[in-house]
Amino acid sequence: MPPFARLTPIGSIRSPFQEPAGTPIQPAFAGEAEGIVEVLPEYAEGLRDLDGFERIWLIYWLDRAPPPRLLVMPFRDDVHRGLFATRAPCRPNPIGLSCVRLLGIERNLLTVGGVDILDGTPVLDIKPYVPQFDAFPQSRAGWLEKGGNNRTLADHRFGSDGAADKG
Amino acid sequence: MPPFARLTPIGSIRSPFQEPAGTPIQPAFAGEAEGIVEVLPEYAEGLRDLDGFERIWLIYWLDRAPPPRLLVMPFRDDVHRGLFATRAPCRPNPIGLSCVRLLGIERNLLTVGGVDILDGTPVLDIKPYVPQFDAFPQSRAGWLEKGGNNRTLADHRFGSDGAADKG
Repeated sequence: MPPFARLTPIGSIRSPFQEPAGTPIQPAFAGEAEGIVEVLPEYAEGLRDLDGFERIWLIYWLDRAPPPRLLVMPFRDDVHRGLFATRAPCRPNPIGLSCVRLLGIERNLLTVGGVDILDGTPVLDIKPYVPQFDAFPQSRAGWLEKGGNNRTLADHRFGSDGAADKG
Repeated sequence: MPPFARLTPIGSIRSPFQEPAGTPIQPAFAGEAEGIVEVLPEYAEGLRDLDGFERIWLIYWLDRAPPPRLLVMPFRDDVHRGLFATRAPCRPNPIGLSCVRLLGIERNLLTVGGVDILDGTPVLDIKPYVPQFDAFPQSRAGWLEKGGNNRTLADHRFGSDGAADKG
């Protein structure tokens, strides 16, 4: 395994969602669902100044994702699409990306809102959400602009042991 | 090493930037800098439908990042900040995240604009940029709203062998 392949969790997520079916497929559909990011105490110092940000990126490992496949039927469509044009969990590297609201920080515990992540998911990184870098509200969104349905919750299509993220 | 730690590159980036100093610290400051994402041929089928998206997320491995540290002086400030409140490269898991413009796709080659990534960087994942999920233009951005300077290019502070991403 090449050297870049070494990952270590910096913490884990506590969320109300124990299985994919019924889990919001994106924070945008998660309403007021709250979760806790439990950062390992040895990384707590790195959280300084984060409280000034309204939103944060959570980068996490979809530890219950099914094996990769290159064509998938996403939650919000009724035809197969190329995997990399979707947010489906069955990726070569099952890395999840969610922009969640940061509601509070106490020591090494972050309370977050709009969580769409399964309980117990390992967290790999936290980054501040910076509109200047991350917000492009007019960006054209391909098939998702004319998707076949308006599903907001996951079902069993990515396996009953699949991860929640992401139609 | 736990099972979630297995990563595999799906391709690599070709960019004009050979070293951190002088590399844009974010796509927002990269202007017209173009790069090529060379996806391994065995994953090319997964690129279907991606051409409908104006922007894509590149998730990549900061293979030249220095060792992690929890307090850093970011490119755009003059005081130390908590690592997770910055986009600095010296992270426990040096995963880079950039929203770039998708200019064209030919077979397994993506031409992208606004690239802020070092030449040869391994790519871990590609996701479509979806404004409904990703764009929050009014989100409060902590210290970055009153940062100490307006630097747009990296310097040597994260090591001459450090990765470009991210003050």
